[in-house]
Amino acid sequence: MTRKIGVIGMGHVGSTVAHYIVADGFADDLVLIDTNEKKVNADATDFEDAMSNLPVHTNLIINDYSALKDADVVISAVGNIGLQKDNKEHDRFIELPFTKKAVKSISQKLKDSGFSGILVNITNPCDVITTMYQHFTGFPKNRVIGTGTLLDSSRMRRAVSAELKIDPRSVTGYNLGEHGNSQFTAWSVVRVLGQPMTKVAAERHIDLSKLDEVARAGGYTVFHGKHYTNYGIASAAVRLANIIISDAHTEIPVSNYHEEYGTYLSYPAIVGRDGIIEQIKLNLTDDEKEKLQTSANYIRTRFEDTLADMEGAKAN
Amino acid sequence: MTRKIGVIGMGHVGSTVAHYIVADGFADDLVLIDTNEKKVNADATDFEDAMSNLPVHTNLIINDYSALKDADVVISAVGNIGLQKDNKEHDRFIELPFTKKAVKSISQKLKDSGFSGILVNITNPCDVITTMYQHFTGFPKNRVIGTGTLLDSSRMRRAVSAELKIDPRSVTGYNLGEHGNSQFTAWSVVRVLGQPMTKVAAERHIDLSKLDEVARAGGYTVFHGKHYTNYGIASAAVRLANIIISDAHTEIPVSNYHEEYGTYLSYPAIVGRDGIIEQIKLNLTDDEKEKLQTSANYIRTRFEDTLADMEGAKAN
Amino acid sequence: MTRKIGVIGMGHVGSTVAHYIVADGFADDLVLIDTNEKKVNADATDFEDAMSNLPVHTNLIINDYSALKDADVVISAVGNIGLQKDNKEHDRFIELPFTKKAVKSISQKLKDSGFSGILVNITNPCDVITTMYQHFTGFPKNRVIGTGTLLDSSRMRRAVSAELKIDPRSVTGYNLGEHGNSQFTAWSVVRVLGQPMTKVAAERHIDLSKLDEVARAGGYTVFHGKHYTNYGIASAAVRLANIIISDAHTEIPVSNYHEEYGTYLSYPAIVGRDGIIEQIKLNLTDDEKEKLQTSANYIRTRFEDTLADMEGAKAN
Amino acid sequence: MTRKIGVIGMGHVGSTVAHYIVADGFADDLVLIDTNEKKVNADATDFEDAMSNLPVHTNLIINDYSALKDADVVISAVGNIGLQKDNKEHDRFIELPFTKKAVKSISQKLKDSGFSGILVNITNPCDVITTMYQHFTGFPKNRVIGTGTLLDSSRMRRAVSAELKIDPRSVTGYNLGEHGNSQFTAWSVVRVLGQPMTKVAAERHIDLSKLDEVARAGGYTVFHGKHYTNYGIASAAVRLANIIISDAHTEIPVSNYHEEYGTYLSYPAIVGRDGIIEQIKLNLTDDEKEKLQTSANYIRTRFEDTLADMEGAKAN
Repeated sequence: MTRKIGVIGMGHVGSTVAHYIVADGFADDLVLIDTNEKKVNADATDFEDAMSNLPVHTNLIINDYSALKDADVVISAVGNIGLQKDNKEHDRFIELPFTKKAVKSISQKLKDSGFSGILVNITNPCDVITTMYQHFTGFPKNRVIGTGTLLDSSRMRRAVSAELKIDPRSVTGYNLGEHGNSQFTAWSVVRVLGQPMTKVAAERHIDLSKLDEVARAGGYTVFHGKHYTNYGIASAAVRLANIIISDAHTEIPVSNYHEEYGTYLSYPAIVGRDGIIEQIKLNLTDDEKEKLQTSANYIRTRFEDTLADMEGAKAN
Repeated sequence: MTRKIGVIGMGHVGSTVAHYIVADGFADDLVLIDTNEKKVNADATDFEDAMSNLPVHTNLIINDYSALKDADVVISAVGNIGLQKDNKEHDRFIELPFTKKAVKSISQKLKDSGFSGILVNITNPCDVITTMYQHFTGFPKNRVIGTGTLLDSSRMRRAVSAELKIDPRSVTGYNLGEHGNSQFTAWSVVRVLGQPMTKVAAERHIDLSKLDEVARAGGYTVFHGKHYTNYGIASAAVRLANIIISDAHTEIPVSNYHEEYGTYLSYPAIVGRDGIIEQIKLNLTDDEKEKLQTSANYIRTRFEDTLADMEGAKAN
Repeated sequence: MTRKIGVIGMGHVGSTVAHYIVADGFADDLVLIDTNEKKVNADATDFEDAMSNLPVHTNLIINDYSALKDADVVISAVGNIGLQKDNKEHDRFIELPFTKKAVKSISQKLKDSGFSGILVNITNPCDVITTMYQHFTGFPKNRVIGTGTLLDSSRMRRAVSAELKIDPRSVTGYNLGEHGNSQFTAWSVVRVLGQPMTKVAAERHIDLSKLDEVARAGGYTVFHGKHYTNYGIASAAVRLANIIISDAHTEIPVSNYHEEYGTYLSYPAIVGRDGIIEQIKLNLTDDEKEKLQTSANYIRTRFEDTLADMEGAKAN
Repeated sequence: MTRKIGVIGMGHVGSTVAHYIVADGFADDLVLIDTNEKKVNADATDFEDAMSNLPVHTNLIINDYSALKDADVVISAVGNIGLQKDNKEHDRFIELPFTKKAVKSISQKLKDSGFSGILVNITNPCDVITTMYQHFTGFPKNRVIGTGTLLDSSRMRRAVSAELKIDPRSVTGYNLGEHGNSQFTAWSVVRVLGQPMTKVAAERHIDLSKLDEVARAGGYTVFHGKHYTNYGIASAAVRLANIIISDAHTEIPVSNYHEEYGTYLSYPAIVGRDGIIEQIKLNLTDDEKEKLQTSANYIRTRFEDTLADMEGAKAN
């Protein structure tokens, strides 16, 4: 029935996501949505100006929620990066007052559209917003997924691969928890060169906390060098969308709902056309379990507080 | 010996060009150059954060002109779009005072690097800057090419295809002359549906000047909607680079030096690994020939004036 | 709803079509059908053995017509190339006694499956078999298409491009009529280097009938060098499928039903998700019109004779 | 300097390798070599007939060893699959009497060409022939690589992924040793779902020897269903070539020379532009080490015997 993807929010991230999809023909129909009509029309026309120099064709549909009814995947990239301008810490919660309102309104429109595909959320703070999307849409939990620490894991893999001079694709392992300051690398499950990374690190005198720092510093380099990040996150989101559409059943770290923690948080899962197909069980150390619990508590509390605020505001 | 591309200037256009190359693995080695070290490092790290979610690998080299020695293609995307902020008309000459200096300095560095590939220029005003690149580098004229009206032609094809509800790839024909306000569609050579467009337009009561307007208005929609354009031009430039690298001998409208006009201007040519392989001869109408002459005169004069200014400035 | 393609017939052509789809991820679900169960399972397992070294995922479904119900495109590549072994002339009608029976049986199964997408036929003799598919399935004529002279046109473009040392993609024009011995190049509509090919040929003393010969000889080189042809036709068929799925509205020469000739024959058309969207009107010379009429008569007669035979056989 | 790949041997495997390269534009220049001139010309013309329906351009060079001088990678796919026709066991050594002669002759021609890239060998028996290529060319051992158990590993990953209903790309681990009957899955290093496969198998009552059987049976299904295998091995070889050309430093199981065993055998290594960059050290069980030693002994003995035979033959 041909591939249809929706992208909501045409800021730096959403437009880069859309461009990657258009340039590679990953979708046949692409629905672009933004409240800033000038911006979404600018990007759409720019894509159409690219079309005759591209080998693949994509049909663009602008600001029409009803077109999402039979979409395979909708990607939320709503944000207000302007709010990050003076943010020295890159605290993703600075955007929450803006994004929480957007999410409630978008959720209603998504429900009204009859959309029954998989909702992939990039919007920050990623885990809280993913939880809110699930809450406000009422979609089954397996069909609402956040990109979460897929990006953080890429940064860890970049740092490890640079240290060892190997392909980042040859580093397996995950960053877990919140896509935010409480995330952490589960070093006990990172593997390279046929060995646990902890063993390789010990043998080669590599300081893992320094690699954590390199991974994190890369994020700062990007954010402070251009005041937003887009290419890493766009590649992560589009890869996730392709996994869903092709029903690949790939193991990938994303924000998904964990019963035992009572919240969305990033942890690897098998992902396919039905969203989360199976949740992975890692053998974490006690220290890692504690970090994960802390991260989970933080996300859950922030979500509950935000929701209470919103309902309180409504009550008044 | 593996593909190597250089991109000079990591603004909106340069970084989109680089992203498209990285996402599709069009180069094995990609050299990124910008005087704004924070920006070029931000983009490079962002690409590296994308790497483990991409199927193809690209080696990034930052701010090292000497690495261009054995590059196949160098793309100049230097610009200062900030200068366009209050520019209602989108006059590409507003950037000239900035770009002319950059070009002289870059030309010297390119010469010093020993670069012997093809120089593809996007920097505006495109034809004047392409001429300056050829002048300052002393590279053979066939090895210095501007993207020119490849983008304008895409916009015309977009407008025609929207009117006829056909694929823009099924519209053949060209916009000629300056990549600027004096460019024009050579309607006499545009063909669709197995017919000259002039005939189809007559039969279907389509006003060609209105299509010109639609093509141009699209450019304004993009520029005024986001204060820059990047996706259309990036696709054009990367397509051109791929044609060069694969020695495809493709007919494509680009800015190339025309002896009879004494200047660079956009006109279709056969392009391959040696740059401009053969210049096409179109059967233009007298009116079109006159427009082309006017456009050529404008470019040549602006180039000569700019050069005289620069040499005058040097003399003082 | 994700892309689904069916391929019926896993000989040299069908398996190459399937491989190209799998290698590039053009479909999410790929249905492979062949009466030779060992062969279709061999190819399917071979594709699955390729999967972990490919960046894209494709789900394979084997010998299940019911899975074609929601397919976007079904490609018929049924054939019995063994029948061509001692065929000095490469007369595609040698396969007809075999393929006509297969087509009737497949048509019934396609109808029973509830398939409502576009049927793309490669099976030879292409135009007669395409007509039979339309006849036996009763599908609307716009939804049954033969690859026809898309391959012959590619051969002509190859011959012209080799002569002029230009990209075959920069040769526009078509071979028309039967995908068989009565096909011909409509030289009056072939264009290169911004000119009619007839003019370029006159100027450069190129003998067009010699180019016809080169185009045809290429086909013989392939057929006699390996006793089948697969790569050229597979690229043609997959390009056609992608045009349909992405609703690109591309102008392309394929076998489509022409009311005025009362038969399927190859002639350019605009193709999209509904199959044939619009038929092109070329300005052919009288000689070309005559050749087309001859070719049309041949196809129609062969179709009618074949059908009469089959119905006669049934009557007895 | 643009990408150049050579393919020697245009049988089922070589032509599929070449087609995959042409269809995806992985090389700019592709050198095709076969002693059967009719076959190599047939495939080359077939590729050229595909060109105008493909988005990427590839220059083909036929039967010219001197063109390999500046190739990045040469892939040997020489074989005589006809010798396998009555081979019930699919013993790859049946081809040795044919391939050993071919390899000696090709090695001389490769040396004479001045080729200094990486030689990737598919020709069977893979490890013996890879060793012979290194012996006869005198190329550094890191620059001669066999595809080895990259295919066997894919089959294991296919079997495991089918059992667990997960993406084969989410199965990590290797088959080691000879690409032949003495190869084995090193189950101790296979990991899925964040766990050792041995643990997952125990928990889910999966019989690993049955999975070994499924992996092997798949190979038989392919071989007996069509008398050759091509898609799986072609994907493996092209992936390896792309890793080399893009200098990706990927961990991949290939046939490479192991000092401690005195022979080529398959074992994971980090691969890049210089071929084998670093050899991995796996923590095998004693049983696995023994199997590897047995496999190594077998390869070394067969190589030594073959060489002695050839030199003996020369001496007489």
